[in-house]
Amino acid sequence: MSELRKDPVVDRWVIISKERGRRPSDFATTEPVYSGSFCPFCPGNEDIVPPEILAYRDSGSQPNGPGWRLRVVPNKFPAVTDSVDLDKRGDGIYDRMNGMGVHEVIIETPKHDVTLASMPVSGVEDVLWAYRERLLALSRDDRLQSGIIFKNHGVVAGASVNHSHSQLIALPVVPKQIKEELKGALNHYHYRERCLFCDIIYQELGSQTRMICESDAFIAFSPYAPRFPFETWIIPKTHQSRFEDTDKAGIERFAVILSDILQRLDRVLDNPPYNFVLHSAPFRQDCNAYYHWHLEIMPKLTRIAGFEWGSGFHINPTPPEETARFMRDAAAQAG
Amino acid sequence: MSELRKDPVVDRWVIISKERGRRPSDFATTEPVYSGSFCPFCPGNEDIVPPEILAYRDSGSQPNGPGWRLRVVPNKFPAVTDSVDLDKRGDGIYDRMNGMGVHEVIIETPKHDVTLASMPVSGVEDVLWAYRERLLALSRDDRLQSGIIFKNHGVVAGASVNHSHSQLIALPVVPKQIKEELKGALNHYHYRERCLFCDIIYQELGSQTRMICESDAFIAFSPYAPRFPFETWIIPKTHQSRFEDTDKAGIERFAVILSDILQRLDRVLDNPPYNFVLHSAPFRQDCNAYYHWHLEIMPKLTRIAGFEWGSGFHINPTPPEETARFMRDAAAQAG
Repeated sequence: MSELRKDPVVDRWVIISKERGRRPSDFATTEPVYSGSFCPFCPGNEDIVPPEILAYRDSGSQPNGPGWRLRVVPNKFPAVTDSVDLDKRGDGIYDRMNGMGVHEVIIETPKHDVTLASMPVSGVEDVLWAYRERLLALSRDDRLQSGIIFKNHGVVAGASVNHSHSQLIALPVVPKQIKEELKGALNHYHYRERCLFCDIIYQELGSQTRMICESDAFIAFSPYAPRFPFETWIIPKTHQSRFEDTDKAGIERFAVILSDILQRLDRVLDNPPYNFVLHSAPFRQDCNAYYHWHLEIMPKLTRIAGFEWGSGFHINPTPPEETARFMRDAAAQAG
Repeated sequence: MSELRKDPVVDRWVIISKERGRRPSDFATTEPVYSGSFCPFCPGNEDIVPPEILAYRDSGSQPNGPGWRLRVVPNKFPAVTDSVDLDKRGDGIYDRMNGMGVHEVIIETPKHDVTLASMPVSGVEDVLWAYRERLLALSRDDRLQSGIIFKNHGVVAGASVNHSHSQLIALPVVPKQIKEELKGALNHYHYRERCLFCDIIYQELGSQTRMICESDAFIAFSPYAPRFPFETWIIPKTHQSRFEDTDKAGIERFAVILSDILQRLDRVLDNPPYNFVLHSAPFRQDCNAYYHWHLEIMPKLTRIAGFEWGSGFHINPTPPEETARFMRDAAAQAG
């Protein structure tokens, strides 16, 4: 069982696994890396991972067998588990609780060599719809405060399995990063009585210098103060704090722009490693007035070094106005 | 010239370089990586880097020539520069200022193959004394608010030159990470009228489970909620907010325990990549009552992935009680 521990100085929780390596050489990995020809996510290997929670399947196909377009399964090596009580306790001046939570894997496609960028838009739509279904389901568990959906693409970005997948971790606490965003957005709202993210959209559409593309429902742009080269945000034009309140038509349009952006990144940077994280309101917090869901895509082209870890500052060698220009120029010929 | 830009949502500054690559392939690096046989930090190549700011030299040797034990030089590819005005301005809803600051390199030894772990303790003492001298000098520049000393050891940890060195970046703002530490420590002080770090030292010495070693002046331990496997903190037993107020005897004793810990890491993990960051009070803030300087050493054995970037949570596969045991067992035979 893992444990959640809070740093006594800053408001930062850490998940400490307790069942892993016992020799120093074992300590380096959070989970096994599958290499060589065997893939635990390919059709035919369904029994390698825990039984599916959700699947989009051909009619007539059996659960946990082939015939699926997308599957959601529990992580076989979960960082947290929902089978324990929280058991919040102090330990002298320290605070801890059991590693309660949910850790799921979204296997995005049965095809081993397809990526989220190269699959048809209908496949991306399936993936986003699965995110929505799982967040809605988990938000009904009163013990959980927030769900983080993220994707690690490429070994450098932390992927331990090549087969295209994303992950969901739901936790009994609201993570620091989300808390800080809520606080910043609330400050802006108190002062200006407007949504900060709506203001960002308005300014980016006005200046155009960091815009990449826009549809009737979304914009994609390079943020003003990006931590990483080619960092890209996708945000809905209509104010909405929760991703999971998006309807079918909204998910369709999100899939179109996400697929477009990932293809542009592939064209400009030749299949770069990247992470993306869906930033959506916590399950049990009324922040509809001032929070605005969005997706942050972070290509991993630079190394994070001591200065970044020690200061919280980032050094980015690339003005977002330049990366936005490259991303605009990378629009597909076909449109 | 670089620019400091503030994220509009969270209190995070980013240094954006503006003179670098113009093609996407150029964007990936913050500075050139010297490879092959040429080393810009070796004796005889003094003219490759800017003129020295400080050097510990043999008597009779000439500045910017051979005959040194340690040199401090301006970074040839600085993230910030002190030759510009701040020029703080808004840009619509965004905030920016010029990339004003100081970026120096401490070349720790003339010997290309020696590391901070393998050099004699007297060499480590020179390095720490140079940190002290430079922080004291820069703290007299009214424009600067804080100085961050950090070291990147190994390519994975972000080192672009193999030759053993550390860096100093001094800035006109207090970085987010330091602000958060000050805030957490002040909260504790308001509630308990004690230094949080002194309380941590007391608890660690009492429980012993995360202790690695102690001397009359310092303790080294695995922190309760480490972000990284084998993360190790070294902290003076005597309450003091500023590293640079340490006297000669204190620096000598700090060198002994730092050398010891780096050697233990080498023994347990076989010369791991690591970062360390000196956490010391900002130049112009009276936090003597509640802040306590320390060094955080972070081996880089795991990859930071989407979940960490999106949540601020870390997943650490290694309980600090286990890593402390390995580190205790790695004490040198000779004592």
